[in-house]
Amino acid sequence: MNIVRPTLILDKEKCLRNIQMMSDKAKRNKLIFRPHFKTHQSAEIGNWFKDFGVNAITVSSVEMAEYFARSGWEDITIAFPFNVLEIDNINILAEKNKINITVSDLETVEIISDKIKNDIGVFLKIDTGAKRTGLTPEKTEVIEKIIKSIERNSHLDLKGFLTHSGHTYNAISKDEILEIHDESRRILKHIKEFSGKKDAIISIGDTPSCSIAVDFNGVDEIRPGNFVFYDLMQLKIGSCNFEQIAVTIAAPVCAKHKERNELIVHCGAIHLSKDFIIDSNGIKIFGAVVKYKNKGWETPVEDVYVKSLSQEHGIIKSSDEFFNNINIGDVIGIVPVHSCLAVSAMKKYITLEGEAIKAMC
Amino acid sequence: MNIVRPTLILDKEKCLRNIQMMSDKAKRNKLIFRPHFKTHQSAEIGNWFKDFGVNAITVSSVEMAEYFARSGWEDITIAFPFNVLEIDNINILAEKNKINITVSDLETVEIISDKIKNDIGVFLKIDTGAKRTGLTPEKTEVIEKIIKSIERNSHLDLKGFLTHSGHTYNAISKDEILEIHDESRRILKHIKEFSGKKDAIISIGDTPSCSIAVDFNGVDEIRPGNFVFYDLMQLKIGSCNFEQIAVTIAAPVCAKHKERNELIVHCGAIHLSKDFIIDSNGIKIFGAVVKYKNKGWETPVEDVYVKSLSQEHGIIKSSDEFFNNINIGDVIGIVPVHSCLAVSAMKKYITLEGEAIKAMC
Repeated sequence: MNIVRPTLILDKEKCLRNIQMMSDKAKRNKLIFRPHFKTHQSAEIGNWFKDFGVNAITVSSVEMAEYFARSGWEDITIAFPFNVLEIDNINILAEKNKINITVSDLETVEIISDKIKNDIGVFLKIDTGAKRTGLTPEKTEVIEKIIKSIERNSHLDLKGFLTHSGHTYNAISKDEILEIHDESRRILKHIKEFSGKKDAIISIGDTPSCSIAVDFNGVDEIRPGNFVFYDLMQLKIGSCNFEQIAVTIAAPVCAKHKERNELIVHCGAIHLSKDFIIDSNGIKIFGAVVKYKNKGWETPVEDVYVKSLSQEHGIIKSSDEFFNNINIGDVIGIVPVHSCLAVSAMKKYITLEGEAIKAMC
Repeated sequence: MNIVRPTLILDKEKCLRNIQMMSDKAKRNKLIFRPHFKTHQSAEIGNWFKDFGVNAITVSSVEMAEYFARSGWEDITIAFPFNVLEIDNINILAEKNKINITVSDLETVEIISDKIKNDIGVFLKIDTGAKRTGLTPEKTEVIEKIIKSIERNSHLDLKGFLTHSGHTYNAISKDEILEIHDESRRILKHIKEFSGKKDAIISIGDTPSCSIAVDFNGVDEIRPGNFVFYDLMQLKIGSCNFEQIAVTIAAPVCAKHKERNELIVHCGAIHLSKDFIIDSNGIKIFGAVVKYKNKGWETPVEDVYVKSLSQEHGIIKSSDEFFNNINIGDVIGIVPVHSCLAVSAMKKYITLEGEAIKAMC
């Protein structure tokens, strides 16, 4: 490959193995596998899932639903608190597709009821502890009212109860993730029982739980997204091992600063976004650094990391050895902290085989 | 305007006033005004500068130079440590355009010397204290060697000494910015004298210095970029007042959480990127919140701010009053912390007059 600019490199084999792994896990546990496509945001990568029997997907916006509907997906859950301003677009999408939306308040359901013209499914978003969005479990009265409101409108079909246990991202051990997973299942099971809706689907989404958990009793559907590529954040959490991370950004080395052992690469905030992890020494890490090999990349170079990012610049804090082995004009790999954001920033991939793949843009 | 999705709103009048202000300041101080186009990244907005007599620009990548060359700019400085892998693209660009590059080490100059086929200008990047990239002033021996190497190649023309005093972004007062500005001028003046190059251009770039300073003695050229829109970071630093901020993101309100006075908007990390400022109470702020009015937006709502961002979600911490006045389906404005990154994420604008404007993509 002739890399001269920051380029998002995709290891297709690793990506396919990740899809296989999660697909197998879903089958083993008799779960509906409705992967979240917000991570790869690509029609072409989406098509890879079809070989694993996937026919239903999750997206994070109506715009993304439109994009994947255009590439042939007909069963789409929009896992974002429904934006009532998009109702006309939902009416169009729902003419030919099975569309599910998520809601967490009565006001939204009433606005939708007034304006919906085609059949859609509705999930109640439950907040199992992430405190971002959704109904907290003690809100039984509101939950009952929302269900009744949904049932009064023949275009609306109560699909079930959905959560995204995003607080697993703050977990510091696998045990803690499993505790969150178990607590989420307990809450969702309780709400389902209380609602009396025996056919309601229990849908969970976060990649850490879906990756680590073995007990999915009570769960009907999983919607992980990030697992398709994983990243440094997931590696830190313990959701994956390094060999599962399927994307890196190839970054040209543009300057060297010996006096502070720093390399300047062309790979900045407009390529990686600005998520960071904090390592065991309290240091902010905006990306790990790898060397490319014949096909793919090696394990991260020890004591070398992306120290800071500005718009186009990445500053790599380096060891003596790495510094001395790298020349201006070399291309090194940056392992993103958050692959979803890096993909959204880059908008296109090159596979290790040199194939160009576009994302939504 | 019919806003249903996150939309980057541009107040063209404010933007034109910002350009006018900086253009006037450059004229008053007899400075070459070579604005940095990395902030707006738009051919159309670039054209607005032509009415102010601007005919030379700055960009942050070879790709951006190619984009603006295609829209008629013929005098372009690429203010990024030159990426030697781009030499073939520079040779093509330099066939028809005046291209300046920046270098900070001998190795890069020697690689360029070997491969350059057309005339280009070369700036030495000087580190006046930002510690990102550039030659520190004590490196007189290297500076001499680089100058000699440039002079040995007839395609290379030493243009002068360039700095970006990015450490002004960490300043906590206008006085501190002025101290940095004065120190930068002193360093650059010293290097110019020491080099014996009387025609060398002294070029400075950071928006805080260019906005606040009144003494530009010794400076020949300014390259500010962010001033075209400004943002919350510049407001905090003191580079601008709120009325000068020319962009906001219109964000639909999708959910309300009364128990914690939080609103969920569709406007996340893929729209704003993830820069934040820390306010006087130590709170991280990912954006200020404004109400739109008939034309434009009001001043930020007090005690209301973007508390956190995930991929598509923004969480707004709200006052009681604001919370009660906002309904699901309302559109509120988010003032970005860092407009350059928000523009790079959004890729297109709508002006208050409803005109659509594209950015590089």
